[in-house]
Amino acid sequence: MLKINFPRLKETIAKSSEIGKTSAGGLCRLALSHEDKMIRDVFTEWMKGIGLDVRIDAFGNMFGRREGKENVAPILIGSHLDTQPKGGKYDGVLGVLTALEVLRVLEEQEIETTHPIEIVNFTNEEGARFEPALLGSGAATNVFTKQYVYERTDKDGVTFKNALEEIGYLGDDVVDLSNVHAFVELHIEQGPVLEKEAKKIGVVQGIKGMSWLEFSVTGDGGHAGPTPMNLRKDAFMASASFIHHLKTKAKEYADLSITIGRMKLSPNVVNCIPDQVIFSLDVRHEDDKIRKNFIAASLAEMENICLEEEVNFKMNPLWEVDTTNFHKDVISEIQQAADDFNFSTINLYSGAGHDAKYMSDVCPVGMIFLPSIGGISHVEHELSLDQDIEDAANVLLKTVLALDKKELK
Amino acid sequence: MLKINFPRLKETIAKSSEIGKTSAGGLCRLALSHEDKMIRDVFTEWMKGIGLDVRIDAFGNMFGRREGKENVAPILIGSHLDTQPKGGKYDGVLGVLTALEVLRVLEEQEIETTHPIEIVNFTNEEGARFEPALLGSGAATNVFTKQYVYERTDKDGVTFKNALEEIGYLGDDVVDLSNVHAFVELHIEQGPVLEKEAKKIGVVQGIKGMSWLEFSVTGDGGHAGPTPMNLRKDAFMASASFIHHLKTKAKEYADLSITIGRMKLSPNVVNCIPDQVIFSLDVRHEDDKIRKNFIAASLAEMENICLEEEVNFKMNPLWEVDTTNFHKDVISEIQQAADDFNFSTINLYSGAGHDAKYMSDVCPVGMIFLPSIGGISHVEHELSLDQDIEDAANVLLKTVLALDKKELK
Repeated sequence: MLKINFPRLKETIAKSSEIGKTSAGGLCRLALSHEDKMIRDVFTEWMKGIGLDVRIDAFGNMFGRREGKENVAPILIGSHLDTQPKGGKYDGVLGVLTALEVLRVLEEQEIETTHPIEIVNFTNEEGARFEPALLGSGAATNVFTKQYVYERTDKDGVTFKNALEEIGYLGDDVVDLSNVHAFVELHIEQGPVLEKEAKKIGVVQGIKGMSWLEFSVTGDGGHAGPTPMNLRKDAFMASASFIHHLKTKAKEYADLSITIGRMKLSPNVVNCIPDQVIFSLDVRHEDDKIRKNFIAASLAEMENICLEEEVNFKMNPLWEVDTTNFHKDVISEIQQAADDFNFSTINLYSGAGHDAKYMSDVCPVGMIFLPSIGGISHVEHELSLDQDIEDAANVLLKTVLALDKKELK
Repeated sequence: MLKINFPRLKETIAKSSEIGKTSAGGLCRLALSHEDKMIRDVFTEWMKGIGLDVRIDAFGNMFGRREGKENVAPILIGSHLDTQPKGGKYDGVLGVLTALEVLRVLEEQEIETTHPIEIVNFTNEEGARFEPALLGSGAATNVFTKQYVYERTDKDGVTFKNALEEIGYLGDDVVDLSNVHAFVELHIEQGPVLEKEAKKIGVVQGIKGMSWLEFSVTGDGGHAGPTPMNLRKDAFMASASFIHHLKTKAKEYADLSITIGRMKLSPNVVNCIPDQVIFSLDVRHEDDKIRKNFIAASLAEMENICLEEEVNFKMNPLWEVDTTNFHKDVISEIQQAADDFNFSTINLYSGAGHDAKYMSDVCPVGMIFLPSIGGISHVEHELSLDQDIEDAANVLLKTVLALDKKELK
């Protein structure tokens, strides 16, 4: 059975892990940063090293194409090379580097496929520098307009387009992804399920729907000393009541998850009552109705809290996506590939968004998960074990070869 | 009944309001700045204009003395002329200018007092330029050593001593304040109680003790999507539970105030579970035992919350001062003076620090509060009404005359 070359893949991962390396051993490779340019340059060399035709689209998405025997729709494999500010070495990176390894094996073994096979590195998947996440794949699949994507700004006011130009990765064409045979993305699970259940491969059924909301709560400031509690209009204390309510309510649902990841107090001084608090809320569930009802009920409760605390709030919906269900044939080929290797598997929905999400709008899609040690990701000590990486990469290789022979509908 | 000359006082306030005036109509008169020198020069002229003996001590505190019939301990009245960078026209300024008006009336009416009466303008009360606040009164009462005070630096690295020399207000002696008959400070309330309760005069009982604590909560980070809620160690959600608990508990005490003014989430990204949250907690109460018990009970509860949420916390005490209780005889003379004018009064503790705080260590002290419109201060639109200023100044005048006849113990 054809297999990937793990020592070679490991060396490739090691090289990637040097670019944007943090002192704690993770990666800081924000989208379109200097470090992102460095990995892109190296990745370009790697693709050209096996004769791939490298293209950059108008959003900085990178494609490396190996022609097939026939001029038919290509199979796309890959993920993203950007990371969180304190991210790990694996995350989306493995999806791109295992895809490269798959093509290296095909090239080395002189295996001709019917379909062309393309690697892809999508821009700004993380959303850590430019919000929202999945900008590159969303742009390439027409979820976002070019204007919208170009005008996104980072916290220093730099636009996406300027950042693209700055690192020299502004391509001039928009790649048509409507004619893709299938897209397969390998990714670390980023959660604890595979490890807890002692399974090797996660056969991903789809991606949970999610909402990103931003709350802005406005009250009255003032000196902390002379203002009695009952005469305050404390934007933070009102927010705290709301958050406590959210936390309590969320526990009533088995699979609902809520996260408050970002918060800003103004003026943010020890003895000043905050006159404004802005915070984000991330809500996820595989049942869209449950997610939407939870949010509607939360907003109604926030109205009550703000009335009681005499503050005002605005809710700004930052982002919303419904649950995505992947293509059943791609799912079954991944399952078959894992079975062929006798790898244990589990069916699960991804709690995190992935480029596969938007790709699923335009072509058949599947995802392969491998275990994340401790279930953690987006941290510097994120870890996946060598054996798991090798096994998942082999499942990717086998899936690609199977899909090459399969008619999908 | 002897009264102050309000048109004259108003004119004096108007002149003060021109020195360091901001475009929004407030004052920027940072301690020992050019603007502070200007008001000091004018204030010196005003004091000399009624024949006061003007002295400057080694910390730039300004004294203007009117002799009494006997060579006994003086009565001290005043406050501070410095302001916040975007401060108002009233704050401590009224305490100095009403004191000047009191002496003008005595001089004009040729009223001889038994005790000498001195006006004081304390240096750097605000702490806006040199930290900590109350430097001048703290130095004069031996809370701070001369070396400590002289070595304080502003944000540009200028020392307190150099700034004093620069504006020509470095005096050469240390005034002995241990032999003062009484100190009375008139000040705007800086809070909403007088206005809300529709009272004219706040008879200040003392200054609330306070604690500034900093909590650092550490959990596990991770991606918001794939980690089920029950497997998280979310530093923010643990903090939120603690804050909800604090808020609920604080309501059980009538006069306890808690403020969370500063908070920082790490990494502070929408879809990252915070691995660390650092926040401040400001706790004030007039009863030190209640404040300390509240804090001790809160820490015990935080232990429980952190056990349950599987996170860790550290508490770093930033600052702590116990409650100051003013002198009962001075308080009762202020009450009597207000009663004599039929002014409505309320007893209250100051939530903010004042020069009266340190003066209280060395002599009998009382404070007179007048209403702050909207309960706000330290802002350019800080406002106290003419009638309230006139009434409070009359209470100050009457209190001084009463204290002059009173033996305090």
